[in-house]
Order: sequence, then C-alpha cells, then structure tokens
Amino acid sequence: MTLANSVLLTDLYQITMLQTYHAEHMQETAVFELFTRRLPPERGFLLAAGLEQALDYLENLRFTTEELDWLANCGRFNRQFVASLKDFRFSGTVHALPEGTAFFANEPLLRVTAPLPEAQLVESRLINLFHYQTLIASKAARCVLAAPNKLLVDFGMRRAHGAEAALLAARAAYLAGFAGSSTVLAGMRFGIPLFGTMAHSLIQAHDREEEAFEHFAAAQPDNVVLLLDTYDTEAAANKLVAMHPRLRERGIQIKGVRLDSGDLSEHARRVRRILDAGGLTQVTIMGSGDLDEYRLRELMATEVPIDGFGIGTRLDASTDAPTLDLVYKLQEYAQQPRRKRSEGKATWPGRKQIYRQFTADGGLAGDCLGLENTPRPGEPLLVKVMENGHRLAATESLATLRDRVRAQLAALPSALRADPNGTPYSVEIAPELRELAARLDRELS
Amino acid sequence: MTLANSVLLTDLYQITMLQTYHAEHMQETAVFELFTRRLPPERGFLLAAGLEQALDYLENLRFTTEELDWLANCGRFNRQFVASLKDFRFSGTVHALPEGTAFFANEPLLRVTAPLPEAQLVESRLINLFHYQTLIASKAARCVLAAPNKLLVDFGMRRAHGAEAALLAARAAYLAGFAGSSTVLAGMRFGIPLFGTMAHSLIQAHDREEEAFEHFAAAQPDNVVLLLDTYDTEAAANKLVAMHPRLRERGIQIKGVRLDSGDLSEHARRVRRILDAGGLTQVTIMGSGDLDEYRLRELMATEVPIDGFGIGTRLDASTDAPTLDLVYKLQEYAQQPRRKRSEGKATWPGRKQIYRQFTADGGLAGDCLGLENTPRPGEPLLVKVMENGHRLAATESLATLRDRVRAQLAALPSALRADPNGTPYSVEIAPELRELAARLDRELS
Repeated sequence: MTLANSVLLTDLYQITMLQTYHAEHMQETAVFELFTRRLPPERGFLLAAGLEQALDYLENLRFTTEELDWLANCGRFNRQFVASLKDFRFSGTVHALPEGTAFFANEPLLRVTAPLPEAQLVESRLINLFHYQTLIASKAARCVLAAPNKLLVDFGMRRAHGAEAALLAARAAYLAGFAGSSTVLAGMRFGIPLFGTMAHSLIQAHDREEEAFEHFAAAQPDNVVLLLDTYDTEAAANKLVAMHPRLRERGIQIKGVRLDSGDLSEHARRVRRILDAGGLTQVTIMGSGDLDEYRLRELMATEVPIDGFGIGTRLDASTDAPTLDLVYKLQEYAQQPRRKRSEGKATWPGRKQIYRQFTADGGLAGDCLGLENTPRPGEPLLVKVMENGHRLAATESLATLRDRVRAQLAALPSALRADPNGTPYSVEIAPELRELAARLDRELS
Repeated sequence: MTLANSVLLTDLYQITMLQTYHAEHMQETAVFELFTRRLPPERGFLLAAGLEQALDYLENLRFTTEELDWLANCGRFNRQFVASLKDFRFSGTVHALPEGTAFFANEPLLRVTAPLPEAQLVESRLINLFHYQTLIASKAARCVLAAPNKLLVDFGMRRAHGAEAALLAARAAYLAGFAGSSTVLAGMRFGIPLFGTMAHSLIQAHDREEEAFEHFAAAQPDNVVLLLDTYDTEAAANKLVAMHPRLRERGIQIKGVRLDSGDLSEHARRVRRILDAGGLTQVTIMGSGDLDEYRLRELMATEVPIDGFGIGTRLDASTDAPTLDLVYKLQEYAQQPRRKRSEGKATWPGRKQIYRQFTADGGLAGDCLGLENTPRPGEPLLVKVMENGHRLAATESLATLRDRVRAQLAALPSALRADPNGTPYSVEIAPELRELAARLDRELS
C-alpha cells in the first residue's frame, strides 16, 4: 500500500513546521489528542474505528529516498533539515479507545505522546484514517440498530470516495455488525465474508431472461441469487417458479432473489407470495437500492418480508453526515498544558482520560472527561497501545471487534438505541479540567 | 499504487458473472456507457474528471499470481475459469468526454466497447474513479464561480475519505481552477502547486505568540504566512505590526496571514485596517474554516478583504452532495441494442453521442442526446481515447485541462453561472433514440 503509507500524504504546513522545530531544536515531548468538537446533528453516538491502520502507519513511517530528493529540490526546505528526515521514525507512545468503543463529543479517541516533530507530522493522516472508518462504522451501526436480525451487506464500493475508502468501508461496516461486503479485495485482505448476486447487464446480455437465470445458476450452482427487476419483477418471479423443477433436476438450488427498484416493500410481498405458492419457501429475498438506516426503519415498520439488505452509496459516503468535526490538538508541550482559545474552537487542555460509569446491568450511565492523573469514578477508557513506536499487543481480530460492538450497542441507553439522533448522552467535564482551562486562560491574558 | 490498481477492487458479482460468461462462451462485443441518471438537486452541471486514472487502470489491468491463488481457493470459482483469468487484459475501445467538459443528466461521459467479460469486470472501479473526481471537480468549479479572482486552495486532505480521495481531490480541484493544494503528495505526483501556512500547535508549543511567529518566519523567510487566531486575532495582528521592523532587518518579509475562526468578514476588515495602518499593505489575508461555495458567496457579497481561501472538508467530501447517481449500463451486446426497464431506472439504449450546440460567441446553447450513427446538428463531444486497450494520445497536461475548464465555465449559460442550482440546461432526446427505446420495449413485452 505505497500510496496509503507515503509520509508525504500530509499537509504542507506539517513539513514547514518541522523545519521550524528543527531550526529551533524544539524536540520536547508533545501530547496531541484526537477528538470531535461536536457530533453531527444526525449522530447521537460514534464508534471508534481506524486504530489498526493508524498503528500500521505509525510503525512504518519513513521517508523514501525519492521523497527526500523531492523535498530537497522543491525549493522550500533547506538541505540540513531534509537530511535530518532521513532517519525520521515515530518513536512515541499512543493511547487509544479500543476499536468499536462508543464515544461522544470532546472525548479523545487517541492520544499521541512523542517528540514534537513526530507528533506533529502525523496529524493529517491520523485524522484521515480515523475520520473515515469512524464515520462508516458509526453509520453502519445505525443500520444494524434499524434492522436487527437482518443480514446487512456493504454494496458501496463503486461510489465510495476512491480506492482506500472502498476497501476500508467494508472493514468498518463489518466490525460494526454487517454480515459482509461485496468488495472482493476486502475479502482477500481482511477475510471479510463476501456477498454478491448478479447485475442487470447479465440479464440484458441474453435474449431471454429465463436463459440468463439458467446460465447463471448453472455456472455457480451453490450460490444462486437472481436479480428480478430488470424488466418486470413479478413476471421474473413467476418465471423462476416455472423453471425451478428443471433446475432442481440438474442439482441446482436457488438460494435467493434480489429486488433493486420500485417499492421494495410492495414488490417483496408480491414476490414472497409467488415464491411460496410455487413451493420456493426456502428462497430468500434481498433488497437493495438507495438504502440507509432511515429507509430501513420505514421498511421494518411495514414488516417487509425481506431477509437481507445491500446498503451501498449512502453507507460508503455516509450521505446524511459525510464528515465529522474530528481534530487533533496540542494539549501539552514540554510538560506544560496548552490551550487553543480560537472563537468557537477552544479546547480542553492537558492529558485527559474518559471515565465511564455503568448501570447495574452493564448499560452506559454517563461519562466524565477528566485528567489522566486525577482519576474519577468509572472505568478509564483510553488504554496504552503503543510505546517507543511499537505496538504493545497483537492486532485485535475483526471477530473481537464485532463482539465489542455488539456489547456496546446493547449497552447504549435505550433512548439512544431507539432514536440515534435523539437524547444526548451525558459527558460531564471534571472540575479539575475546568480549573486547568481557567488557569491557562488567566496566564495567557 | 498497488491498492488502487488491484483488479480485485471490484464487486464480487463481477467475477461471478465472468464465470457465467466463461461457461457460456459469451465473449461478444458489449457496449457500456457511464452516465448519471439525474443531477443532485444541488448541482446544475457537472465537470467530467477521472479519465486519466481510468485509462491508467485499464492499461494495467491484470490478475497477480497472489490474486489468482486467492480466487482459486476461496471456494467460489472453478479452476478452469480461474486459469482463464491468467491472461486477462483489457483490449477494448474507449470513447470519453475530455476531462473538464461540462455535462448533464443522461449524457454519457464514457463508453466502453469490449468483449463482454472485459467490459463487465471494470464496471465497479470505473464508476469509483470517475465518481469521485467528477464530484470534486464539479464542487470546486462552483467555488471558482462563487469567488472569481480569489486564490482558492484545497485544504481538505485530512477529512477526505481515505488516502486516494485525499490525493485525487487535489487533482480534481486544481483542474477545476483552484490555485493548488496543501497535500504534499499531490505536489510530488502531479506537480500541483502547494500552499500552506502553520497550525495552531506551533503557536501553542511556544510560551509567547511573538516568539512563535519569529521562529517560524526565520525558518522559512521566503514564505511566511502566519496564523493569527490562536488566542486573539486582532491582538496577533498588532503584534505582527510591532515586530515587523525587527524581522525586516533580518531580511524576512511577511507574505501573508491566515484567519481560521469567528466572523471571517469582520476579522478580515479589522486585520486589514491594522496591517495597513502599520504599513503592511502588501501582506495578504487568507481565510479558512468550514468554507464552501455558499459561504464564499456570502463573504464575497460583503466585499470581504480576503485575498485567498483554503477550502477543506466541505470540498473534499462534497458535503452538500456527497454522491452522484453515476451508473454504467449495458447498451448493446452482440450488435443488438439493450435496454434495462427497471422502475425509475430505465436507460436509453444503443451507442450514443452528445451533440452540443453553441451560440455565436461560443456559449452552450443546448445539447441533443442522440445515436452515434445518426448525427444531429452540433459538435459531437465523445471522442475515442483508447483502442485495443492502448491510449491513442499522450496524457493531457493539467494546464490543458485547466484551460478547458476555464473556457467551459465561461461558456455556461449566464443563469447557470450565477446560480449553479438554478435554471436547468436543455438536453433534448433525439427522436431516433426515443424510437429505438420504444421498439425494444415492444420486442420485450
């Protein structure tokens, strides 16, 4: 993944600032935290995701000879500074929320503690990596909550924003509870279960729809899912019933059908009746086409007889909330807490920890955002995952992450589970954190 | 770019369908076209972009040994079929709109003519490549129309959806008329001009703001752009005026300042007054923070004294319209025109051409969507760019594409230029195309 891990996939100002830090010998320890200043109005909670790729990025970060040559010759940087980048490595400590943890506004999902230049340079790509997977895992979790017990599959590769988004959307959706993805590369790279049916083009390339069905079924007799809506959905379902005995004689079992247009609820009902009347009760129905959690809730309310849904474009681009206000801010330098005070963008200073309280049956009961060195009641959520630039533990499997998400979603307050845009979750700011911020403001003014 | 060009970055059903085509010896010529069924309500026109990366993808498409092994062992495909993929190449013909051409609903921006399996397999990634850059070029063009004569810079890398989106957003915005990007890799890969200032963290890492300014200026004396809003914007501007004589003695010229929070219009006015009163009339002002074409129009209406704008998140995620209804549909197979009739998703069949008419002074006067073999008045827009799997011409330079976009934007109807969501542009469907669709419907029913 050359592209993904290029150290030059960053903003110019990071390297410009590094040149200043180099000139001024500013190499003391910096502490940056990654958090969202506010949730999008369409989101009541977020799920942390992207840590695995971020740790991979940090562990492998270095300038190639080609990159150093380019920097030396681009007319912006002095030779001595560029030469110093030759041995650049990330040697810092990282604390993070385990992937799949629910979090809220102002709560850090990552803390980077490292010499200032190292912690600075990685800002842009760390945001980029956490931003997208967190966005998609959170969106996918909303779909899971909207359609529990349905098989949900990521179909969004084609309209994801580029190659990496396509690949990582499959991962983020899977860890959030989707059954799998249609993206083949995600199957190969991450072992994510793959699902797929057929496109309209296969039907259209045949003169007769029945012939297309038959050819497709014969070529993969174990996994036949037929698309019914190329010309007339119910007519196609009837054709299927008529041809079924012939297929069965050849040892072919139809596994499912897919509907991709029109009123899915109405078509599914009619198709289910046709299939059942024809003895094809075991054939499942899959629905797709401009679906998201809102549409899923509507369909579920009609008790639609659809067994699974392919969720594409609106998942992979998180259409209703395509970005998060995710930022990475300096909270401490050279042992001194730091605070940005820009209008509407002030930050809570210092090394922070999230202390989460639970109800007797394990439900989330409220968080406190406090200082790491001043414990508050509750479970501290940020854990150390990297030290001296090396991971402290093996990669968590996707199965582990799925289990965590399942538990997290079950533990959400029921109001938030029922209406993920609704009741805000309580995040209290610890008094000592407020005092620290006030003290810094006094010192600066 | 291993990730970007993996042939397995596709939907599972493509490979499943290829297995059917292989079993049935369906290798005849297929014609697919790429188009949007409708424009987003927020878009009055789109700019075609992504062709360069698409041609690169098609020219280099092949299965690696590792990919073939994975396919052979994933339990879905038979050995004979997988073996046939070893020599898979794209050998087809491609017609396309030159990058930077304005287009509208139903108008193909790409036509692929190739043996069915080749034309089929590439669907997912072709949509993915054209979708994102077209989305961003179109959004960027709206920013250019909103703030003509201002320097616009892509600042969105961190919240673009993944690595490839970050890189290609810089390209798409630049071809649409942006002055450059902050994404360093885009500078190295595409020669796109880079712009950057400093982050709040550099200020915060110093005990005094003046010291931060001075260190930063000394480290890159030729390109000093200082961020003013870390604590108090106007106070920072006054500090700058006070320290300026000292810097000048050291041969340092302040080039500009950046404002990133609060009421940009009001702060810019005050900062301009402070700078001018202090003799710093040549120092430019850059604005950033949640900007897009809507906000730019508001700022321009106040005659804000800002010289350039950094446009980030809302550009790179095209926040107001994060996806296009871009599809790739079979229009002909084995010399027979084909038509999908799904509810609300019916397509115009056959090999089509866009015939564009112009006013006397070169303005766009209306398009006709017709058949390639039945010319209509106007200039045919789709041109042949690939034959037998090889490009017909050298890559167009970004300078050429920028010139084309400049001409295209100038040629848009003035109503569309003034309000890009407004007046729809006329795209007539040629009578022979309507007749062909009607004939196919009769034959199928």
